[in-house]
Amino acid sequence: MGVFGIYETSRSDVAGAAYLALYALQHRGQESCGIAVNDDGVIKVHKDTGLVPDVFNADNLGKLGLGNMAVGHVLYAPSGAKDRSNAQPLVVRHTKGTMAIADNGTLTNYNELREELELGGAIFQSLSDAEVIAYSITKERLTAPSIEESINRAMNRLKGAYSLVIMSPQKLIAARDPDGFRPLCIGKLGDAIIFTSETCALNSLGATFIRDIEPGEIVVVDENGMRSIKDHCGHKEHICVFEFVYFARPDSVIEGACVHEARQRAGAFLALEHPVDADVVIGVPDSGLDAALGYSKQSGIPYGVGFIKNRYIGRTFIQSSQSLREKSVRIKLNAVESTVKGKRVVLIDDSIVRGTTSDRIVRLLREAGAKEIHMRLSSPPFVNPCYYGTDIDAKDKLIACRMTVDEIAKHIGVDSLGYLSIDAVKKIAPTKSCGFCTACFDGQYPVTPPSSPFKNKYDCKLSEKAK
Amino acid sequence: MGVFGIYETSRSDVAGAAYLALYALQHRGQESCGIAVNDDGVIKVHKDTGLVPDVFNADNLGKLGLGNMAVGHVLYAPSGAKDRSNAQPLVVRHTKGTMAIADNGTLTNYNELREELELGGAIFQSLSDAEVIAYSITKERLTAPSIEESINRAMNRLKGAYSLVIMSPQKLIAARDPDGFRPLCIGKLGDAIIFTSETCALNSLGATFIRDIEPGEIVVVDENGMRSIKDHCGHKEHICVFEFVYFARPDSVIEGACVHEARQRAGAFLALEHPVDADVVIGVPDSGLDAALGYSKQSGIPYGVGFIKNRYIGRTFIQSSQSLREKSVRIKLNAVESTVKGKRVVLIDDSIVRGTTSDRIVRLLREAGAKEIHMRLSSPPFVNPCYYGTDIDAKDKLIACRMTVDEIAKHIGVDSLGYLSIDAVKKIAPTKSCGFCTACFDGQYPVTPPSSPFKNKYDCKLSEKAK
Amino acid sequence: MGVFGIYETSRSDVAGAAYLALYALQHRGQESCGIAVNDDGVIKVHKDTGLVPDVFNADNLGKLGLGNMAVGHVLYAPSGAKDRSNAQPLVVRHTKGTMAIADNGTLTNYNELREELELGGAIFQSLSDAEVIAYSITKERLTAPSIEESINRAMNRLKGAYSLVIMSPQKLIAARDPDGFRPLCIGKLGDAIIFTSETCALNSLGATFIRDIEPGEIVVVDENGMRSIKDHCGHKEHICVFEFVYFARPDSVIEGACVHEARQRAGAFLALEHPVDADVVIGVPDSGLDAALGYSKQSGIPYGVGFIKNRYIGRTFIQSSQSLREKSVRIKLNAVESTVKGKRVVLIDDSIVRGTTSDRIVRLLREAGAKEIHMRLSSPPFVNPCYYGTDIDAKDKLIACRMTVDEIAKHIGVDSLGYLSIDAVKKIAPTKSCGFCTACFDGQYPVTPPSSPFKNKYDCKLSEKAK
Amino acid sequence: MGVFGIYETSRSDVAGAAYLALYALQHRGQESCGIAVNDDGVIKVHKDTGLVPDVFNADNLGKLGLGNMAVGHVLYAPSGAKDRSNAQPLVVRHTKGTMAIADNGTLTNYNELREELELGGAIFQSLSDAEVIAYSITKERLTAPSIEESINRAMNRLKGAYSLVIMSPQKLIAARDPDGFRPLCIGKLGDAIIFTSETCALNSLGATFIRDIEPGEIVVVDENGMRSIKDHCGHKEHICVFEFVYFARPDSVIEGACVHEARQRAGAFLALEHPVDADVVIGVPDSGLDAALGYSKQSGIPYGVGFIKNRYIGRTFIQSSQSLREKSVRIKLNAVESTVKGKRVVLIDDSIVRGTTSDRIVRLLREAGAKEIHMRLSSPPFVNPCYYGTDIDAKDKLIACRMTVDEIAKHIGVDSLGYLSIDAVKKIAPTKSCGFCTACFDGQYPVTPPSSPFKNKYDCKLSEKAK
Repeated sequence: MGVFGIYETSRSDVAGAAYLALYALQHRGQESCGIAVNDDGVIKVHKDTGLVPDVFNADNLGKLGLGNMAVGHVLYAPSGAKDRSNAQPLVVRHTKGTMAIADNGTLTNYNELREELELGGAIFQSLSDAEVIAYSITKERLTAPSIEESINRAMNRLKGAYSLVIMSPQKLIAARDPDGFRPLCIGKLGDAIIFTSETCALNSLGATFIRDIEPGEIVVVDENGMRSIKDHCGHKEHICVFEFVYFARPDSVIEGACVHEARQRAGAFLALEHPVDADVVIGVPDSGLDAALGYSKQSGIPYGVGFIKNRYIGRTFIQSSQSLREKSVRIKLNAVESTVKGKRVVLIDDSIVRGTTSDRIVRLLREAGAKEIHMRLSSPPFVNPCYYGTDIDAKDKLIACRMTVDEIAKHIGVDSLGYLSIDAVKKIAPTKSCGFCTACFDGQYPVTPPSSPFKNKYDCKLSEKAK
Repeated sequence: MGVFGIYETSRSDVAGAAYLALYALQHRGQESCGIAVNDDGVIKVHKDTGLVPDVFNADNLGKLGLGNMAVGHVLYAPSGAKDRSNAQPLVVRHTKGTMAIADNGTLTNYNELREELELGGAIFQSLSDAEVIAYSITKERLTAPSIEESINRAMNRLKGAYSLVIMSPQKLIAARDPDGFRPLCIGKLGDAIIFTSETCALNSLGATFIRDIEPGEIVVVDENGMRSIKDHCGHKEHICVFEFVYFARPDSVIEGACVHEARQRAGAFLALEHPVDADVVIGVPDSGLDAALGYSKQSGIPYGVGFIKNRYIGRTFIQSSQSLREKSVRIKLNAVESTVKGKRVVLIDDSIVRGTTSDRIVRLLREAGAKEIHMRLSSPPFVNPCYYGTDIDAKDKLIACRMTVDEIAKHIGVDSLGYLSIDAVKKIAPTKSCGFCTACFDGQYPVTPPSSPFKNKYDCKLSEKAK
Repeated sequence: MGVFGIYETSRSDVAGAAYLALYALQHRGQESCGIAVNDDGVIKVHKDTGLVPDVFNADNLGKLGLGNMAVGHVLYAPSGAKDRSNAQPLVVRHTKGTMAIADNGTLTNYNELREELELGGAIFQSLSDAEVIAYSITKERLTAPSIEESINRAMNRLKGAYSLVIMSPQKLIAARDPDGFRPLCIGKLGDAIIFTSETCALNSLGATFIRDIEPGEIVVVDENGMRSIKDHCGHKEHICVFEFVYFARPDSVIEGACVHEARQRAGAFLALEHPVDADVVIGVPDSGLDAALGYSKQSGIPYGVGFIKNRYIGRTFIQSSQSLREKSVRIKLNAVESTVKGKRVVLIDDSIVRGTTSDRIVRLLREAGAKEIHMRLSSPPFVNPCYYGTDIDAKDKLIACRMTVDEIAKHIGVDSLGYLSIDAVKKIAPTKSCGFCTACFDGQYPVTPPSSPFKNKYDCKLSEKAK
Repeated sequence: MGVFGIYETSRSDVAGAAYLALYALQHRGQESCGIAVNDDGVIKVHKDTGLVPDVFNADNLGKLGLGNMAVGHVLYAPSGAKDRSNAQPLVVRHTKGTMAIADNGTLTNYNELREELELGGAIFQSLSDAEVIAYSITKERLTAPSIEESINRAMNRLKGAYSLVIMSPQKLIAARDPDGFRPLCIGKLGDAIIFTSETCALNSLGATFIRDIEPGEIVVVDENGMRSIKDHCGHKEHICVFEFVYFARPDSVIEGACVHEARQRAGAFLALEHPVDADVVIGVPDSGLDAALGYSKQSGIPYGVGFIKNRYIGRTFIQSSQSLREKSVRIKLNAVESTVKGKRVVLIDDSIVRGTTSDRIVRLLREAGAKEIHMRLSSPPFVNPCYYGTDIDAKDKLIACRMTVDEIAKHIGVDSLGYLSIDAVKKIAPTKSCGFCTACFDGQYPVTPPSSPFKNKYDCKLSEKAK
């Protein structure tokens, strides 16, 4: 998920700015998106399921109008969450005014908090963390002197991962969980202050990067300027390693480290850990390309373009008949025969989750005439569920939980298979000042996982019938 | 606003049934509409701003799927409420399960209830009564043994007008306020039970009318059949007289009285109270046609077709240039010259609110050659605001508050003007067993009006900035 | 079908004017519609299948832009013609420039003309007469000194019904076939000249009626003003009687006769020709209402509102399941029980084509408790196909060709049935200066029908496979 | 532009196959697209402006239905051609039946042919070559014994570039101009025969490549199988070199040469012709990436990822306010700072047309900290207009016609600039059996250019006003 907030010193096209930023953050979530605009205390919102260019048009951007603040969100979520009710920003009215919330992350104690709130008479209109967070802040707001202090107090209760951008009638506030699982940074565009998930959103607006928000930090902007509350700071940082391996855009810089460089370095480590005698190194577009380049440079094996990805795929793709569905395997990705034919190929991808995609890709290469296929993965095997927003499947669906490396290699049909080691993945971003969360690889959970995991909270079927 | 609910004994196309019923109830609200389907306890909802044929299509009706219960709603509201967030049914999850609510009416103590709830930490995502009602029921549900008992207890707190259809995982429940301001009836379609605002929705489905729900009555249907809770019954009934004069469809039968007949009778009383020597009686389509027929029959003056209404108007109507806007006065309504040219015309309408529409209509008749225009209105002058859901403007906008009858006649350019008397309007539906609320005419409010009226709760600008 | 053209003396919002006019002409055709704008010789067009409010929006009207001329069209056609390729105006480029054509009617020699053109190498991109007409005019344009003379010459070849509005780079031209089967009139709006099918389109714009175009007349407007070519005038006029009975809007005045009055008169004749002892006269909305009023006045039997028509039906109507399809007979039309229960009812409609609709309507009345039903039709029985654009089915589908009046009465379940006589239908518009075409009733075809009728030219299946 | 045709031996989902193929050909044209399906001689078509995923959905693909043949098209054209009327396939009815045409190319004698046809009475409803071709074939069809012979004869008159796929009621026919300017190949999918522009469309369907169609060849498929007419074969082939440099997808194989390889080779030649001392070689996505890799390999300078392209851009992109328009330069393309900061960069692109894009890209690199920028272009300077479908601007807009290489370098702000030589560009696809058209570089036009070029035929303003 991706978040964005802008505070302008005068009435301006903040909706347009949010729109551009969400475009740049689209890779962080394709389920739904939304923008809320604050015009002198009055908040308007437009949000829906779909991509940014589908949800927004000149008409509805125009209706959002001008304002001095805006908050935006792109949602990434399992299929159950595709419902419009889960789209953010969430806009609520409470006893002290209104509030718009955009959140990236997953609370580990969502269940406990929601149960407690429900026992106090709360009603829920979505399955998103944002609603639980809104209630938690509102509850504190009854006694706290300010919105930022309410957030500060609510953070005592919120466990897990959250990167928040919150807009009150007069203030724009960003807050990051004490472990800093998800990125959140500050930028500047003229006099305007911006909070957003990735620096590529700043670039898209021509804004300047100021600094990352610290884990546990609350940053407030209002007519008096910007200030911090650091009561929750000081924990050891645990940014999700998958932000570097897969989530973030390569041109973003997170915690001082360039994502593209980290991926190249992951490729270089792979070459050292899993060398192989081969003719060409290719990457699976787009997530394996950077690591492939790193592998090539380290190993000296030439880099090649092994696949062409159809640039126009993305929206609903209709496969009218079963026979076509089978025939159309190459519509999204097609192998470049001249690159792989008769060659010993090193194939780089970021990870294998269930194995079905890898299986299909390997088949494409075989059909294109690859002589040997040596698959290398720029991350260690997933063997533990993630409770902080990565949405990695339950253990029984993870191929690495069910098979040995050799079994997987055989299953997907490659001549050899090598995963990056946990030691190596921890070193892919050396300039980064902080530590990584690598729980999905090594089970070292920085925040206690939920006892009875509300894993399927987005699965309406389960959650409602349980009641 | 119009509500609908269906309880089927087996899984069937309840969404399709709701769709047909909402089509028949469309005249009760054109702002937004929605359908929630309950399939074995799992509730799906689709709702949006717009008319039923615009909001629903084969695709989204298909996604709602089969179920054993459905609830539907059409919303009528001032422009401020056109936001998607106010669309109903409202679907909420609470500590004991889920609930879908569709409501017709206006709470007089919305403000007090919301304030009280907010002080308890409640957050609001819409401006609709349904959300306050949902909180009120949920609060009682914490201790009440059943959903129906929660509703029963909540009704102690709800003041004003409400006709509710509520769906829990296993039950379909209808409830009507103790004064019975808005209609609500029960029908039967095979083994299925239906609750809905008007009998025309029953007819559209080929369902049979069983009976009206009593003011204050709660009716519950579940696998054990249908039963009533009558703790709030026994008050003097005060159904809104405007349901007969304007809101309801002429073919509906409300509280035992046919709406078309009531309107004809109103016309007949008008002829007795305000006779005039004339050549033809015409009605303003569609609301004045029935009364015009009644006036004609009583007076012996021939009934004529004075206007043709464009059947295709209804959706967004584009008036690209100012000059066209002025020219296009006859696009919705055009006078039939042969009916009125050189004639002394009796013109019947249901009411005059601000006077602008009447002014335009009178001009059309003059241009078509009417010699004299005697306007007759099938209701008394509005002089008091309505707090029960009629959405009649604030006093300063009501023309009858600012001018005498003679002044109004002069203002809109008619040769004479006559309003139906309050005594007469009370007699237009003699077969009806109950009393009327005629507060908008005589100020006799059955339920105490709000002290500081939250009149503009749908005006986001005002309500939010107040905070 | 309906046509419209406007010639402005300066650049103005002619697209907006056409849009309003097409709204008023929508009853003449719901399959497709279009507008072509001429801005200083450059012609832009937008057209598509669907109703005017669905096809046009602020965006595409804006793109059509300003101009000094516009032509508009609404298409009525059998289902085979719903293809976008048949939408008009047809815009073509030929050796002497460009031309936009909008046509109302049906050529009887379409087949012969198309064959001849095809043998000369012509290609056809639609099945509409307009394309044959465009070729015919273009052919003459090769040698004729002007566009109007080309039209004049082409009219020697065109047989059957056509009311044309044609726009060349510099001129707006209207032409009507020598029999005048379809209406076409001239109006004035400030300095602008308008050609259109019905006066209601003039009224919608606030324009003034000037006169009807004569059968066979060509009227040209350009910077030199308006002039006529009358080489094809002087035939006996044969305007389609069905324009008065069914097609035209009641508020239109055609050939000096008001349509509403003609329908009332038809009802009065019916009362004289087929009197019956009854309690109430009702009409089938909307086409039977005027005649019902005429019947009531003539007979002294009170006029009643027997049905309520759902005002919101019109667009795609989804009937998701078979069971609902059967239940939903009352969604479009519902009987008013209080009007008909226990009564002897005179039921007026304009015609019976196949009998299925009448059957359904009679059933509604029976279910609502009508004691007797006496059906009266404001036109004689259809027994002959129409070749001039009425699109009446082939003989084998016309119920009146297969059954006697008594058999039809029995078939649709009425107690008695009476058709208006041919003599009477000829007298319904006495002020009208011209004769009627009544071929569908009496087989007196003013123009020789096609020998091998291209009846199903819109049936792609047939027409293409024939080749 | 891209064309596609499929001939199945039995009724099957040919529309679905065309849809998949057009998806794979989308890079060849984004203005409009269309599919025509032939079901036992009856042809249905759906086409519109927009991308394949926007124009087609489950609903309209379903309506196209099953068939035994289909033709598809994607259109690339200057802005004037965005009108729906220019979308293909063009479906026409002529004296001997129906025909659907999809064309890739530009006729050099369009003007002459159209004039001649117009003088014979032809009317034109679009500005596309396809209509002129349809008339030309139809004219011959009057006397020729078959559709293929009509095409064969018409080819005597057609000059310039055309790759046609034509569907008659019973046959699917492909034809390529005698110079073979645009690619066209044959594939096989089970028993089905496919004609299409690029092999990537075959791959998308899982079809097998059979062979390229020869320049001047006509290939016919019907129930008797496949056969060739080679009356127009034997000319020296002149395939457009820009197919290899820019148009085609890298994974396609054209005339035996892999496009990706050709681009790499172009990069290698560039390294030899314009060596430079630098730290990193980067390409402009997507068209410069392959050549950058080739330059890197040849020169030994490391390959780097210099830019990230937003994968979600493509559809309408809204820039609500002027200030944002300026800020949003990095929304489509963003520089990767870690790759270029402080580096001497070799920047590879395929060409410079007007210079504005290059200017913007160079600025991005400078802002990202590039120390030196050495731009290399994988094609020679454009100095001559193209008349065969490349749509290269008129001379006065081509930067290379107005400036020397040094001036251009200065203008776009690079430290050095090098174009590939004409000699080298001719050698980029050595396995290819045929010659190149390099007229845009050297003025050697294989087919005489039009004397008075109808350069702006898509400019309605000019073409219509000329008349």
